Amino acid sequence: MERAAVPPLSSVAICGGTHGNELTGVYIVKEMQKQKTDKVGSVSITTVVTNPRALDAGTRYTEMDLNRCFTDVLLSSPVTESSPYELRRAQELNAQLGPKGSAEAVDLLIDLHNTTANMGLCLIFYSIDWITLHIYKHIQNKMSSVPVRAIQLDIPISDAYSLESVGKHGFAIEVGPQPNGVLRADIFNMVKEAVDLTLAWLQEFNSGRSYEGGTVEAYTFVRSVDYPRDSAGKITAAIHQDLQDNDFKLLRSGDPIFQTFSGETLKYDGEDLYPFFVNECAYYEKKIAFHLAQRKTFSFPSIRVKKD
Amino acid sequence: MERAAVPPLSSVAICGGTHGNELTGVYIVKEMQKQKTDKVGSVSITTVVTNPRALDAGTRYTEMDLNRCFTDVLLSSPVTESSPYELRRAQELNAQLGPKGSAEAVDLLIDLHNTTANMGLCLIFYSIDWITLHIYKHIQNKMSSVPVRAIQLDIPISDAYSLESVGKHGFAIEVGPQPNGVLRADIFNMVKEAVDLTLAWLQEFNSGRSYEGGTVEAYTFVRSVDYPRDSAGKITAAIHQDLQDNDFKLLRSGDPIFQTFSGETLKYDGEDLYPFFVNECAYYEKKIAFHLAQRKTFSFPSIRVKKD
Repeated sequence: MERAAVPPLSSVAICGGTHGNELTGVYIVKEMQKQKTDKVGSVSITTVVTNPRALDAGTRYTEMDLNRCFTDVLLSSPVTESSPYELRRAQELNAQLGPKGSAEAVDLLIDLHNTTANMGLCLIFYSIDWITLHIYKHIQNKMSSVPVRAIQLDIPISDAYSLESVGKHGFAIEVGPQPNGVLRADIFNMVKEAVDLTLAWLQEFNSGRSYEGGTVEAYTFVRSVDYPRDSAGKITAAIHQDLQDNDFKLLRSGDPIFQTFSGETLKYDGEDLYPFFVNECAYYEKKIAFHLAQRKTFSFPSIRVKKD
Repeated sequence: MERAAVPPLSSVAICGGTHGNELTGVYIVKEMQKQKTDKVGSVSITTVVTNPRALDAGTRYTEMDLNRCFTDVLLSSPVTESSPYELRRAQELNAQLGPKGSAEAVDLLIDLHNTTANMGLCLIFYSIDWITLHIYKHIQNKMSSVPVRAIQLDIPISDAYSLESVGKHGFAIEVGPQPNGVLRADIFNMVKEAVDLTLAWLQEFNSGRSYEGGTVEAYTFVRSVDYPRDSAGKITAAIHQDLQDNDFKLLRSGDPIFQTFSGETLKYDGEDLYPFFVNECAYYEKKIAFHLAQRKTFSFPSIRVKKD
């Protein structure tokens, strides 16, 4: 591929608390605010605790999942004072950090999340974005304390529902396992390292360093699997202990996936795929026991900042 | 010590969901109800999901912590329809399974809990109760899948605030780590094994088998340690990663206990003690980062059922 010239990345937003019970991002953001980290070299930094009501309530959200509100349709829907808090908040955030798809949007938006699944550190992104792929490769090369992976959601950006889609470039950093409502120092340190590596990369990029192209492995979402349920919709099984904590370990036909409460083992029947978000707390209500992905190789070109 | 003759233990209550987001007990109890497990040999079994409103809400409690409502004072306080739901529910449970301290109370009450702390399987009990100590030793001898420990809270039974104090004998089974709102098969299986071992022990005891006396190690609560907090009461540090997941590992002066959000390590200064409930989710609001305990040896006599 050709070498690409990319405009400078001079504004970045670091967001946390989009889900109010995922605490790592909240405390990363609050500490940056306390330290008044609003500029690092050539990069201006906006830090936002995005769902303060849910944070105060100690819940994922108060009326609707904020991180499902950033589609074009929802961002342009009329709101009144009786609209769900999170829908109104999404439009506020879009005005502050976007508007999504516009020239005014922040150059890079990073939203910090946690999961109860054993996923290590994952970047989640939508389109095949060279900047995200370069930063992903950089973080993966530099961090040794945790497996670093990426997940691509193949959704048009207009339908992309999560906050990071508001930036010109953007990704979520999803780290686990961490229980909701709990803050672990090891995970705090991992996320801080990933944020610091990203900020350092942005500065070097803006200063004119060129980055070689290459390839990187990432996972692409294929489908979700729900828990077995009874006629009333109640779950009748837990994730099997052979699958629990084994996110990103290839699942093959015949592998155990559920254990019913009466002790029966239920097995996987399907094509070889990689499970992730295995036993994520918030997904019981979304009827998702785990997602399945393919692993793919993504190519990206050499890049360098575009001169004025 | 002498051999003691103890009345038969013919009624047992197995309770779950006292905290509505601790799911293992909920699903153990619901499965026993589905299987209509209301009698095992000589033992009649009552199963109760104790806080159904909190379970439906996916929260620990709705208005006040149910498992702090079983003191004599609260159980005898007048209630109206405007009293907190959990206070009214505690009095209902006391009528159903007690009354606490009376001849009508169930012989043994087991309440099933989870923690986000890495505590393995712990029995928690109040008074020095021979039956509990015998059952503890039995479970400890039989289970190899998890460390089995016990914690004694040295509180007069009248002030004992948790549900298990309603039975003539009683203990909580506290198992972790498991995030709130998540059900893990490995932990489900551990708790089921402990319940089954207890029911089998009760039957053998009732049938006349004598059990030798002996000693067992258990932990006695000494004091709690809060997180460092700022003037607004907000935490300024997380549990240090050297302490995280190291419940019941002796803590000595100079050992790291907290990492501040700016990266400083705070060290323990005090007598050698054993930490437990390290980074329990529900204890942030109770201003407890971890508890500290001494380890003690408890003696118990040989026992046998009292003949009619």
